[in-house]
Amino acid sequence: MIVIMKKNANKSQIDNFSSWLKAMGFDIHLSIGTNHTILGIVGDTSSLDIEVIRALEIVEDVKRIQDPFKNASRKFHGEDTVITLPCGVKIGGGHFQVIAGPCSVESEKQIISVAKAVKAAGATLLRGGAFKPRTSPYSFQGLQELGIKLLMEAKKETGLPVVSEIMDASHIPMFEYIDIIQVGARNMQNFELLKQLGQLRKPILLKRGLANTLQELLMSAEYILAGGNREVILCERGIRTFETYTRNTLDLSAIPILHGLSHLPVIVDPSHSTGYARLVRPMALAATAAGADGLIIEVHNDPANALCDGPQSLTPEAFSELMKKVNAIRPFADR
Amino acid sequence: MIVIMKKNANKSQIDNFSSWLKAMGFDIHLSIGTNHTILGIVGDTSSLDIEVIRALEIVEDVKRIQDPFKNASRKFHGEDTVITLPCGVKIGGGHFQVIAGPCSVESEKQIISVAKAVKAAGATLLRGGAFKPRTSPYSFQGLQELGIKLLMEAKKETGLPVVSEIMDASHIPMFEYIDIIQVGARNMQNFELLKQLGQLRKPILLKRGLANTLQELLMSAEYILAGGNREVILCERGIRTFETYTRNTLDLSAIPILHGLSHLPVIVDPSHSTGYARLVRPMALAATAAGADGLIIEVHNDPANALCDGPQSLTPEAFSELMKKVNAIRPFADR
Amino acid sequence: MIVIMKKNANKSQIDNFSSWLKAMGFDIHLSIGTNHTILGIVGDTSSLDIEVIRALEIVEDVKRIQDPFKNASRKFHGEDTVITLPCGVKIGGGHFQVIAGPCSVESEKQIISVAKAVKAAGATLLRGGAFKPRTSPYSFQGLQELGIKLLMEAKKETGLPVVSEIMDASHIPMFEYIDIIQVGARNMQNFELLKQLGQLRKPILLKRGLANTLQELLMSAEYILAGGNREVILCERGIRTFETYTRNTLDLSAIPILHGLSHLPVIVDPSHSTGYARLVRPMALAATAAGADGLIIEVHNDPANALCDGPQSLTPEAFSELMKKVNAIRPFADR
Amino acid sequence: MIVIMKKNANKSQIDNFSSWLKAMGFDIHLSIGTNHTILGIVGDTSSLDIEVIRALEIVEDVKRIQDPFKNASRKFHGEDTVITLPCGVKIGGGHFQVIAGPCSVESEKQIISVAKAVKAAGATLLRGGAFKPRTSPYSFQGLQELGIKLLMEAKKETGLPVVSEIMDASHIPMFEYIDIIQVGARNMQNFELLKQLGQLRKPILLKRGLANTLQELLMSAEYILAGGNREVILCERGIRTFETYTRNTLDLSAIPILHGLSHLPVIVDPSHSTGYARLVRPMALAATAAGADGLIIEVHNDPANALCDGPQSLTPEAFSELMKKVNAIRPFADR
Repeated sequence: MIVIMKKNANKSQIDNFSSWLKAMGFDIHLSIGTNHTILGIVGDTSSLDIEVIRALEIVEDVKRIQDPFKNASRKFHGEDTVITLPCGVKIGGGHFQVIAGPCSVESEKQIISVAKAVKAAGATLLRGGAFKPRTSPYSFQGLQELGIKLLMEAKKETGLPVVSEIMDASHIPMFEYIDIIQVGARNMQNFELLKQLGQLRKPILLKRGLANTLQELLMSAEYILAGGNREVILCERGIRTFETYTRNTLDLSAIPILHGLSHLPVIVDPSHSTGYARLVRPMALAATAAGADGLIIEVHNDPANALCDGPQSLTPEAFSELMKKVNAIRPFADR
Repeated sequence: MIVIMKKNANKSQIDNFSSWLKAMGFDIHLSIGTNHTILGIVGDTSSLDIEVIRALEIVEDVKRIQDPFKNASRKFHGEDTVITLPCGVKIGGGHFQVIAGPCSVESEKQIISVAKAVKAAGATLLRGGAFKPRTSPYSFQGLQELGIKLLMEAKKETGLPVVSEIMDASHIPMFEYIDIIQVGARNMQNFELLKQLGQLRKPILLKRGLANTLQELLMSAEYILAGGNREVILCERGIRTFETYTRNTLDLSAIPILHGLSHLPVIVDPSHSTGYARLVRPMALAATAAGADGLIIEVHNDPANALCDGPQSLTPEAFSELMKKVNAIRPFADR
Repeated sequence: MIVIMKKNANKSQIDNFSSWLKAMGFDIHLSIGTNHTILGIVGDTSSLDIEVIRALEIVEDVKRIQDPFKNASRKFHGEDTVITLPCGVKIGGGHFQVIAGPCSVESEKQIISVAKAVKAAGATLLRGGAFKPRTSPYSFQGLQELGIKLLMEAKKETGLPVVSEIMDASHIPMFEYIDIIQVGARNMQNFELLKQLGQLRKPILLKRGLANTLQELLMSAEYILAGGNREVILCERGIRTFETYTRNTLDLSAIPILHGLSHLPVIVDPSHSTGYARLVRPMALAATAAGADGLIIEVHNDPANALCDGPQSLTPEAFSELMKKVNAIRPFADR
Repeated sequence: MIVIMKKNANKSQIDNFSSWLKAMGFDIHLSIGTNHTILGIVGDTSSLDIEVIRALEIVEDVKRIQDPFKNASRKFHGEDTVITLPCGVKIGGGHFQVIAGPCSVESEKQIISVAKAVKAAGATLLRGGAFKPRTSPYSFQGLQELGIKLLMEAKKETGLPVVSEIMDASHIPMFEYIDIIQVGARNMQNFELLKQLGQLRKPILLKRGLANTLQELLMSAEYILAGGNREVILCERGIRTFETYTRNTLDLSAIPILHGLSHLPVIVDPSHSTGYARLVRPMALAATAAGADGLIIEVHNDPANALCDGPQSLTPEAFSELMKKVNAIRPFADR
């Protein structure tokens, strides 16, 4: 970390500041120029809060040299992390997987029928929401524990491993047989939840928050990794912008950037980000071309009666068509 | 709620849609124009997800007429909510309070000395962080349970009621004697936590999320109110923008807007939003002039040794000066 | 346009409002409900400012039904616009073109050598900046008129049609032999410039502003189209977000959305948006897969000495490799 | 400027980079650490494009030490700039002025009646739009040259100096007798216009762009100052955020920040930013308390018939009430 001192910072202030840093175990390299004194802080600065340093009266500005994440960093872990589920399905390091299923689990019939349809079309994992984060307390909050049980039925029936979203650390025991636990965008910085998930030995699918940077996403992954759980899948799902024709703006540059900074697999959710079924296909193809390690796509059950079942969801037929195009583009994808 | 149907939506589709809505208990008023068919949905539409309706294939656009919040709405509760603490301190409805104290509780000596200083300067509540939400798992996470105990010591010593931040529902028992429980910006949409806090009968200070709208803030308040806890204090603490000279951008128009939409008290945090001590005073004065019901301000303990204790914090002297200006402006404030 | 009146709006106020609208030539359909009175304004409402209506004391909210753009709208012009340059090159409606060249024109040797290299790799148009919009008055502002002359030399030498950016209406005469005039992001709402370009009969490449919505982009296109110039190419080049690892965030969902709303060709600039050469390839492939009508890519001249010539530029070799992948993905692209 | 080189940058690359910088006249201080080589670039780096340096393959990161603006900087010009109009009215350095008037000039009767009303209430300058930047080409574009003439009439009648917005450099001759030329938010980075205004000797009121940082605002001021025109007034008028209850979010922290960075006067526009008349008063009082050098406020003419004349405008009576509160708060304002 490099700290540029203000012109009017006097020697005694700079000495105090250096002593404080040394007391925390850092080495200090002082460089006194004609205009500015610059302090190089040498050591593991990941515990230092850059905002606190920047706001000191005697500091003009501050700059991190090292990334503030370590376990997630490709600099310390050069090879791609490959996550292997108990059933043998692998994600990352060239293994591309498509997770598909309904927004919410609604009934045994629904989840099993969608599971069969997406499996037939080539999906290798099943998704389904049991706990639903809703802006309004008056909206349907999911089938909750029952939803988890129905997912287990669908898994038994189809053999597909299962992904579902958790909303509170106290629910962890219910997720024992869920293959991948999803942390939603609104919980990306629910640090207590992340800490508890770090104690598990089970893959975590961590979605980027709606207004969070990629560095913040990696710092949240670091919470899980630091607890000892090495299996984190990063997920780009769209960020808030001023655009109103989409619900959120899918940031596909996240794929090459995260692959450059980290060894963790990166998947993309084109359903929630756009909010419209007709945008899912172009965005899924674009994510594939940009080198994503997988996709997570909403597919609904009964197109004939699906008036209000997931307007951002594809029909099984549209999903099947999409899978063909995805497979055609895969060989020419970046990386 | 008004739904504008697409030009090419046929009668059978519109009938299906109407039936689905009627089945949920709504009345439907159909208005067939030369260019568009418009559906008025009559009833309590707060449980309807506007995003789901908007994304239907046959829907051109949709517009809410009623606010999606009820308990928080001034339309249903015209008078200002006044929150009275056990010690008699009141907030809202013309009662203006200043909450002050250190960013983190660090030691008994520190918290008691700051508590005495801010009380002497005119603060009527003490703040102090025991659980700290930190972007990095390697940063100091607060004294936690010990911090809560030290706050109780300071309360006993000075008589000041105490405000502290909660990060997980499982910590609620520890907050039994905390007077006001704060929900931080990153937990504004931690819906499981909000539901649990709705079960308490204790004031909740709810901070606006970093990229959340005021409607989303009110919807989160609604989660608490819907649980039966009627005492929510809304807090503007700055939002993310592209500006880099401040940590966040304080949105002071939140004060008159929230006062217009809701009966709940609205306070402002000028310390965290700006990130710099020298910006706290102008922003505190501006918030006062705009009609805030109170301020929450960071004050640190020992200016002489406070090198790294809260660069966004005021010294007790600066806080005391600020209080004089705040009191001078109060009589001319808006409202 | 639908106007929802406030509950407390009285009959006389609503009558006044209706009369004012009728005086402007609109028909008014009044629908009086139990809770709200709703006014439907029938006619060409594109001249009505929705913000002005919304802010009236008696108005609760307002909603446009028709798009505020007409000439740019696919509803009034169902077929894709295909733009044909004098040399026969076509853009749009299935015709995919790649525009390539240096950020700035620097010398005759440079521009001719890059032009030859990109032509050999398959580019069909040459780009090069003569007038450079720079945040700082102290930065290099381009070769200006000389730059335009050198582009003409490169066009003569290679036969490639030429694209260059204009910054002020008074420069139009200099662009007489430029094949496509580019309007940069910062001038997207320079309405006086747009009006003047509407008087030309020459294609305009209109870039989306850094914080503008797609509707605003189409409204700016409408300024040109309304003047009688029917040849506008829309360009997504990245928008401002909170992400700091990229200069701007490329919004690839703009491609299917603009294709849905408008008949105009849509191209993508992956160089300026990302700001880093290594991100150009994945984003160019993603844009192709999502169905763009073309790409505009920076390629620099002399890789050996190009230390500071466009760090977001590809070498001719990298560009050539990219073209092969683009061509491989094209047959599987969306649409 | 400090440049942190990548770990894998070899000596020859660093030497090339240093030579290139030296050739431009900079001195280079090299500091080779155990982990990183750091280059200090000494000299006037305001002409260096930080984005170009940052994106070089061998550069890890880069940090400016000096502000990129000089003429606008308080470091080089410690005293507040005070702008004196020919009529003697002063702005800045403790001189607080209120500019008021209608959104658009509509008729001689209208502008003269508003001018008299705002003068009576204490305004010291008259505003009025003759050229109107409108998102839609179909919206009223202002009375243009006639509007300027009517402003001159109102100036003659009341003695109030006049502020009006310019949209294109070719209109400068029409503004000969306008006292202060306003540059609107959408033209803040219309660099050709700024250059031409730098050639005048007349105050320029420069509004912050809708998604621009304060540094970018100061860089645009620098374009005018660098041309020799020393009289620039900075204006905060709200920025784009995700909030939907206001048109834009007024960033009042801009006031103390700009006062810290620059010697130029800073005024605030609470009318356009909020978009609603009822928000003008609280925001005007807040801006005053935060230490603004003035306000620019919309006041409309004929409240009885002003159905659609400026819903963000105050009536003359409301403006008069506001002025009383502003004057009461002024003595306690920050600074």
